[in-house]
Amino acid sequence: MAQQTPDDKPTGLAYRAMKTLHRVELVAIGDELLNGLRANSHLVYLGDLLQKHDLGITRASEIRDEPEEMLAAFQQALERSDLIIVTGGLGPTSDDRTADCMASALKTPLVTNKAAEEAIVEFFRARDREPTPNNFKQCEIVEGGEALLNSNGTAPGQWIEKDEKVIVLLPGPPRELKPMFEEQVLPRLLKKAWAKEGAPPVEIRTLGLGESVVADMLEPILAEAGDKVRVAYCAHMNYVDVRLTPVEGGLDGKALRALGEVCRQRLGIGFLGYGTPDIACVILKQLRGLNKSLAVAESCTGGLLASRFTDMAGASKVFKGGVVCYNNEIKEAILNIPDCILSQHGAVSAECAVAMATAVAELMESDYALAITGYAGPNGGREPAGTVYLGYHSPVGAWSRKVVLPGNRIAVKERAVVASLDFLRHKLEKYKMYDLLESLKC
Amino acid sequence: MAQQTPDDKPTGLAYRAMKTLHRVELVAIGDELLNGLRANSHLVYLGDLLQKHDLGITRASEIRDEPEEMLAAFQQALERSDLIIVTGGLGPTSDDRTADCMASALKTPLVTNKAAEEAIVEFFRARDREPTPNNFKQCEIVEGGEALLNSNGTAPGQWIEKDEKVIVLLPGPPRELKPMFEEQVLPRLLKKAWAKEGAPPVEIRTLGLGESVVADMLEPILAEAGDKVRVAYCAHMNYVDVRLTPVEGGLDGKALRALGEVCRQRLGIGFLGYGTPDIACVILKQLRGLNKSLAVAESCTGGLLASRFTDMAGASKVFKGGVVCYNNEIKEAILNIPDCILSQHGAVSAECAVAMATAVAELMESDYALAITGYAGPNGGREPAGTVYLGYHSPVGAWSRKVVLPGNRIAVKERAVVASLDFLRHKLEKYKMYDLLESLKC
Repeated sequence: MAQQTPDDKPTGLAYRAMKTLHRVELVAIGDELLNGLRANSHLVYLGDLLQKHDLGITRASEIRDEPEEMLAAFQQALERSDLIIVTGGLGPTSDDRTADCMASALKTPLVTNKAAEEAIVEFFRARDREPTPNNFKQCEIVEGGEALLNSNGTAPGQWIEKDEKVIVLLPGPPRELKPMFEEQVLPRLLKKAWAKEGAPPVEIRTLGLGESVVADMLEPILAEAGDKVRVAYCAHMNYVDVRLTPVEGGLDGKALRALGEVCRQRLGIGFLGYGTPDIACVILKQLRGLNKSLAVAESCTGGLLASRFTDMAGASKVFKGGVVCYNNEIKEAILNIPDCILSQHGAVSAECAVAMATAVAELMESDYALAITGYAGPNGGREPAGTVYLGYHSPVGAWSRKVVLPGNRIAVKERAVVASLDFLRHKLEKYKMYDLLESLKC
Repeated sequence: MAQQTPDDKPTGLAYRAMKTLHRVELVAIGDELLNGLRANSHLVYLGDLLQKHDLGITRASEIRDEPEEMLAAFQQALERSDLIIVTGGLGPTSDDRTADCMASALKTPLVTNKAAEEAIVEFFRARDREPTPNNFKQCEIVEGGEALLNSNGTAPGQWIEKDEKVIVLLPGPPRELKPMFEEQVLPRLLKKAWAKEGAPPVEIRTLGLGESVVADMLEPILAEAGDKVRVAYCAHMNYVDVRLTPVEGGLDGKALRALGEVCRQRLGIGFLGYGTPDIACVILKQLRGLNKSLAVAESCTGGLLASRFTDMAGASKVFKGGVVCYNNEIKEAILNIPDCILSQHGAVSAECAVAMATAVAELMESDYALAITGYAGPNGGREPAGTVYLGYHSPVGAWSRKVVLPGNRIAVKERAVVASLDFLRHKLEKYKMYDLLESLKC
């Protein structure tokens, strides 16, 4: 991928990623995964978790709730893979056929599992309800398999070992699947030494740089590490993430973190943080460290910036609040934006953005303030849709910045929010000595 | 599923859904789909679109960027399916191997396509850049296939017909894939009469009812339609959707819409709308119809409610703005919430919610107002996390409602926003005669 020069044959890096000791296959059951009603979120969850335990998923598929389809898929998976994880189709209804299809594929009968039966009786007793005969269908486990008890529902999972393969059946609802996997499946995989509690991967989030720019910047550093580390890039709407995963016999945790530090240095202000931090979270921590407060005034983003701060617990120590002024009267009435600014420069202007930031800082008595005003689309005004002015107020001064953002209304809102936060991040970086001295005064 | 009684064998409804004339298989290429970095969004998009054209996806899989894996997956797909859609792996780099792996699977050579070559030259000319030799690798099309020109990138797609099968290769980036599919692939599938421009499905969105309640309410109605319609349910965090899809030889468009109307009647206030409307959009339309305005005051949801309105173009006719008051000083200073309310009842109280709604209506001179104050978590206060008070101000009076919402902080925020909008929806419904008379006065 990006870490290769285009003329190369696939290199060691790309190849190593696929060479695992065990082939892992995820088979997700459900018509709703194929008709556009639901995304296969289990694949993202399990893919991430297994990758972090050096047991990446080799292949995944989505299969309809139809016995012939399921049987064929299970047989194929059993032929080519060592670990087969099946999600869904374990419920009490007649179209929940995962257990009997897997039993057929394994040519092994289903037997009633006592522990699972007791768990179901207990589940219903605790809720003062009566189980139906269908609920007991769920106690049927492939002979020789173990029931994985379900603390959040009635369908037990199954752990089956046969012919040196492992088959895991998991219930479909995420709140049942996740604890079952983490508490009962992962420990068994670790015990078998298929999964490894190795060094955690180092994740680096960058902001303001394109994927190819990030790859170009890091290539010399990562080329030196060669095939001692697995590298993956992922571009999101605003961020590009780089994930450095340890490989068997490669860099250890300390060396991996040191490599991360070298990347960080190289990326400069493009480095947002380790892990996958949201920029609002980064800003919040910086301001908390400075013991400073923030307020926001929003027009076209309509509260999205404010909402981003309040996604985090403890935000109220820094974030004072915001004003959403969606028309000019509100800008005048609540923020006291002078009519002359609105009539001379318009509500979408650098002047108005700065006035909004300064006004909301005064109104809420905050140290810093951000303001956003622009055309989210689909229509523009004096300027095209996507034109957004950012206003910034701080103890060292007030600035504005114009950005032109691509995409539809929702995308423009999202990009404007991140652009305003990045504006603040750059200013904080530039004036950090001043901010530091200021914070010591308090 | 839910439309069956648990004791049934899978009925005609469930079975019919799988019987299609053509087997359609999606093969998505990319390591990032398997290691948790990215969800397979193409499956959701194409699954929905094809289902609506009576050509549902039978099976899908995610495959690593490795030639052996890809070749094996393509060979298997060609054996069992009629239409094979491959996404990703068409880029200019050496690990973009979709075209040559498919050529191998089909035992057909790649040949340079003139039209694709010219399009690439033009693409770079328009951007004042020089193509590299790698870019021209992308002009290689499976012999006998057609290039699908890409107006948003350099990688052309491919349409290949061989042995009565159709193979479609699409570029990975959604903004390239979607227009290519809709403008070039779907018309070809319609022309072959594999896809059908049949009656569009009737989608019904419900709010405030659980999935099993919706199924129980609609079962008698839908049982009567028997296998003349395909029924699917999908529960989201706040909504339960029901989709009625026409089947060959079943209900026509008019009868399907009439069936939808019967469902609508049965669901009563639980019916939110046809399609998959957002509740904020429904409210906005209702208030626009009444020629009334709205303002909001938010504490724990921190701007999320306001942002929901401004996701829609033209919201400013109805939505005046909002105040995010994340601490008590702001509640006092900007909304003038009397100190006696805050000290006697607390900021998280029915009294404060009503006072916030009334205050913001006055401040912004709006007809209606909503307020939200509560404990989003992880910590509660005088009451547990998830406790939220909703305030509502209207020309006929002001009310509050207490809700206790499950989930983490993000989920509580999301649920509180929808609960407040649903509160307003119920009140509008109850006082609709009054609102109507009021609106005629204006």
